[in-house]
Amino acid sequence: MTTTFAPLPPSTSAPLHPGTSAPSVTVVFRPAEKRVEVPPGTLLSDAARQAGVDILMPCGGQGRCGRCAVVVESGTVRRRSTQRLSPEDIAAGYALACQTLVESDVVVFVPPQERIERRIKETKRAAKIELPFPYDRHDQPLRKFAVTLEPPSLADQTDDWSRLQRELARRYGLRDVQASLPVLRKLPRALREGEWTVTAVVELDAWDRPEGPPRLIDVLPGEHLESLWAVAIDIGTTSNVVWLVDLMRGEVMAQAADYNGQIARGEDVISRIIYASKGDGLRELQELVMGTLNRLIAQVAAEQNIRPDEIYKATVAGNTTMIHLFAGIPPESIRLMPFIPVVNHVPTFPAREVGLGIHPEGTVDCLPGIASYVGADITAGVVSSGLCDSDELTLFIDVGTNGEMVLGDCSWLISCACSAGPAFEGAGVVHGMRATAGAIEEVWINPETYEATYKVIGDERPRGICGSGLISLLAEMFVTGVVDKSGNINLDLPTPRVRRGEHGPEYVIAWANETATGRDIVITAVDIDNLMRAKAAIYAGFSVLARSVGLTLQDAQRVLIGGAFGQYINVEKAIQIGMLPDMPYDRFHFLGNTSVRGAYYALVSREMRRRVTEVGRMMTYLELSADNTFFDEFNAALFLPHTDLSQFPSVAAMMGEG
Amino acid sequence: MTTTFAPLPPSTSAPLHPGTSAPSVTVVFRPAEKRVEVPPGTLLSDAARQAGVDILMPCGGQGRCGRCAVVVESGTVRRRSTQRLSPEDIAAGYALACQTLVESDVVVFVPPQERIERRIKETKRAAKIELPFPYDRHDQPLRKFAVTLEPPSLADQTDDWSRLQRELARRYGLRDVQASLPVLRKLPRALREGEWTVTAVVELDAWDRPEGPPRLIDVLPGEHLESLWAVAIDIGTTSNVVWLVDLMRGEVMAQAADYNGQIARGEDVISRIIYASKGDGLRELQELVMGTLNRLIAQVAAEQNIRPDEIYKATVAGNTTMIHLFAGIPPESIRLMPFIPVVNHVPTFPAREVGLGIHPEGTVDCLPGIASYVGADITAGVVSSGLCDSDELTLFIDVGTNGEMVLGDCSWLISCACSAGPAFEGAGVVHGMRATAGAIEEVWINPETYEATYKVIGDERPRGICGSGLISLLAEMFVTGVVDKSGNINLDLPTPRVRRGEHGPEYVIAWANETATGRDIVITAVDIDNLMRAKAAIYAGFSVLARSVGLTLQDAQRVLIGGAFGQYINVEKAIQIGMLPDMPYDRFHFLGNTSVRGAYYALVSREMRRRVTEVGRMMTYLELSADNTFFDEFNAALFLPHTDLSQFPSVAAMMGEG
Repeated sequence: MTTTFAPLPPSTSAPLHPGTSAPSVTVVFRPAEKRVEVPPGTLLSDAARQAGVDILMPCGGQGRCGRCAVVVESGTVRRRSTQRLSPEDIAAGYALACQTLVESDVVVFVPPQERIERRIKETKRAAKIELPFPYDRHDQPLRKFAVTLEPPSLADQTDDWSRLQRELARRYGLRDVQASLPVLRKLPRALREGEWTVTAVVELDAWDRPEGPPRLIDVLPGEHLESLWAVAIDIGTTSNVVWLVDLMRGEVMAQAADYNGQIARGEDVISRIIYASKGDGLRELQELVMGTLNRLIAQVAAEQNIRPDEIYKATVAGNTTMIHLFAGIPPESIRLMPFIPVVNHVPTFPAREVGLGIHPEGTVDCLPGIASYVGADITAGVVSSGLCDSDELTLFIDVGTNGEMVLGDCSWLISCACSAGPAFEGAGVVHGMRATAGAIEEVWINPETYEATYKVIGDERPRGICGSGLISLLAEMFVTGVVDKSGNINLDLPTPRVRRGEHGPEYVIAWANETATGRDIVITAVDIDNLMRAKAAIYAGFSVLARSVGLTLQDAQRVLIGGAFGQYINVEKAIQIGMLPDMPYDRFHFLGNTSVRGAYYALVSREMRRRVTEVGRMMTYLELSADNTFFDEFNAALFLPHTDLSQFPSVAAMMGEG
Repeated sequence: MTTTFAPLPPSTSAPLHPGTSAPSVTVVFRPAEKRVEVPPGTLLSDAARQAGVDILMPCGGQGRCGRCAVVVESGTVRRRSTQRLSPEDIAAGYALACQTLVESDVVVFVPPQERIERRIKETKRAAKIELPFPYDRHDQPLRKFAVTLEPPSLADQTDDWSRLQRELARRYGLRDVQASLPVLRKLPRALREGEWTVTAVVELDAWDRPEGPPRLIDVLPGEHLESLWAVAIDIGTTSNVVWLVDLMRGEVMAQAADYNGQIARGEDVISRIIYASKGDGLRELQELVMGTLNRLIAQVAAEQNIRPDEIYKATVAGNTTMIHLFAGIPPESIRLMPFIPVVNHVPTFPAREVGLGIHPEGTVDCLPGIASYVGADITAGVVSSGLCDSDELTLFIDVGTNGEMVLGDCSWLISCACSAGPAFEGAGVVHGMRATAGAIEEVWINPETYEATYKVIGDERPRGICGSGLISLLAEMFVTGVVDKSGNINLDLPTPRVRRGEHGPEYVIAWANETATGRDIVITAVDIDNLMRAKAAIYAGFSVLARSVGLTLQDAQRVLIGGAFGQYINVEKAIQIGMLPDMPYDRFHFLGNTSVRGAYYALVSREMRRRVTEVGRMMTYLELSADNTFFDEFNAALFLPHTDLSQFPSVAAMMGEG
């Protein structure tokens, strides 16, 4: 995903031609090796423009977004502002191009945009942490065993299958190995083609039968121990991810991701459930997600030059509805009071039963979920984040259509899900859209002019605004006074961007002539109301969780943010609107896709698999619709940032300054 | 199956009109209530003809076949011969119509033909015995359990599946019940339609996993404990049999049988194996047998007014090749040295995996076989005959294309199979055919005229001769001197029936004007040679079995004859040709289809299922092609009845008299 920016308003640009009479210094931009002569005191950002070097400045050169960070490798500069830089950054030479004046000849390194972005996320959003993997990466349930059998004779007429069982028991201690018809059908040819040497692909024990018996998945003529393929799958409502794992190495060898093909039949789980309940909808949705997964599997297989049927196992994480649809289980009861899933832990089944495009006898393990709205993606997250192995009180959150959250440590876990509604997924907002090309994903508002600058996903004009853009927008509107603490738009501001539109008061983010749609992109009072309700629901969830165990949110020593959406959340802005609890940024950690990671762990480690099951058992689920305090907490959170400002000291302080 | 007879030669008929001058007596034939006046001394058979009552006389009134037995209910008769009647028969009033003279007014009961036939088989062939069933008929592995669940609530959010598992454990002690995806897919609707009362169809334990866990096969809304259906299946190479069993009663409620649809692709197992090894042959053969079985299942289901998918389990017996083809497992290795089956005990699988037309999740248990040519039909036979529970030394035989035989008692069992060739199935014989309509199934030769009389299956002219007909024919030819002890046809006999034909010496069984084909039906010297080899192979098998354990055949206290063909064997004639060991007839017992009976037992009794498995384990298999003594025994048996006449004292005695 590449990003592009709206053209800078003329008011923010520095003079392009400082004149030739003044003494000049040389600025060299690496790695492009472009150079330019400029007068001392020129902004690095202006020098870059003259040199034809692109530097990102989504906030329009106000020094607020931190996106124009470059590294001064030699020479003297003066930093007007280091608002977004840590002391370590500065020591490492980082400077904001829009806030830094050249004073001598300098050499400046412009990090690739992607690297800047990651840096921004790491230092200014939540820190990305490397997850520890405390288990044996070669304790996988799926194994390969090469055996050479004594050929049959008139004196030893043992049948093929008993002969193989006997040798697997004798040589590897595998007792009572089971086989299904399809593998028995292959057996006689494999034995004879391999001249009585075969490689048995064996699942030592199923997730739901840890005591065994082992199950023969495939039998190959000859000895083939070089690799053993499996896939870890995350079925998100929006995105599907497949990791191809070589179990011989214990490592991820290829990855692929794409949108869930079900999106065409509904953007959120509720609309999918409704679709599934009509006519042939369930079958159709199952085929759609299988289509996506099988394309991804084919893609990772091609990357490693293997056939998909050389993949012998899949572990699958996803929310409860996605798991139901994947397995073809009717999900209706999930959305109806009292919100009961058909099954939290789907029993292990062979891939052919759902049409998953790996070896048809390969086993599919769906990770266990906890409840209708705390699914396998969350247990996967709790385990893969190490939450359940830590004695630090930790809050784990995964924000999408629903905010799923877990509070606890190694000795207890409590979880809940609050229906945030689809606002953060871009639905329920006039110009809302998913975080895809053309979506505004970050907004800055000039506190004096109320002009907006924005960052768009993909190399194109904006078509709408996605969840992270909305959080950013709401925070900016609040901080700059475009909305008050109740979220009401101040129509008295001296800017044409604030106006009364068709649906009541609204603020214009992008004018028609800037957009791909040829229409103004706005946020309305109704949109704001939906966002307020969404963020309030999430924060209320946190509060109820903490309160239910007699703690406050501030007691949490870490906040782990999982999920695809999580990585785009600007923590600072999310705190400003009162969506995330107000605590030092360094307590927030972005973990990336913890769901597929959990699935991967369950592939390579039986110990991890046991842990996931234990987590499922030990986790208490709080159904918020049955909780009286939730509604009170929700109402209290329907303000920016919150009715109780004491819960948001940093925001209160900023507002006092502003 | 109805039988008809060739027209009686005029020479054997008695005068039709005895004259009116003589005093007369009245003969009343029941149940037709037909009466006739005849002179005293008239044969009952003649009186019957006059009265227009059909009495069967396949041997033409020579008193040799015993088929014309009637019951004299009152009055005085004189029995010229009682050759085929036991003292008990005579005490009960039985008399042979062709050998009995009326002396007073008499009332005669003519049993229905079918009843006569059964009686003949029971008393004059092998005695049919009622098999004991020493086990609990309600110890079946498949059960139904009705449960009423606590409905879910916000306070108890247990998922549907765990809720059902919990109640099955609490109420019935069923721990850790497993379910497949298809039943989980039905679960939410069943629970809600039944308003949280459902009937669970549960397999307590699989054959190959006697320790469990239980497996949920289906879940029905509401309580349905009135019946629980299952089928016992015997897949013969020629005929398929289905018994529909209500496990609630433990009883067989309907039966159906038909030819195996695979016959069109080969009459014996070897030709089927060859067909299966080519192109799509295996799939085709599997579909053919499934077509036959599914038609039979639909038939028995219709008879009981149920849908086939209300049948939740099938047990299947059959020879090893039939089981391989049924399960779609390549059978090639069965016919290639060293004759190794892929699997003797196919693991339990759901019906949908082979397309068997019962409930798709219903389990299919194939009974275990011993070797390529001693299959599940034999273990079924050994168990259902009670052989393995008796301390009497018993010989169990099942004669078809192969002669399969078991010798032993409750403490040891030894088995072998000898390739008798297809002669007894009607192949390898010029006018041979299967035991179907138009087949000559019994032959009598007049020892003076060498004229043949025969009995044909079905109401039609003969088209050929089947296995039992060939045994009968060969015995008659031997006893009457048409062939010598080496099986050579005596061309010097004063009858046109003996002649030199296209293929060498031959005997005419039926003249062209009697047959359906318009051609003479003959047996040639080559045919006789094939028959001699077939019967020699079978007897050699017996001998090797007995010798291998240091016994003689005469030590056997019982000979149990199973299989479809077995019931048509005339024991006396089979002894005369040296195919069965020479011992008193009362040691021979015809058991009918022991294969389907064994399958039925395994349906209703887990104890029986364990016994079958034990029998499979305890039975020693003697591969005759690896046994040096077999060839010697075979050569010694290539005479009528045998080189060593001391083994056939009753035949020797008869020949001494003849």
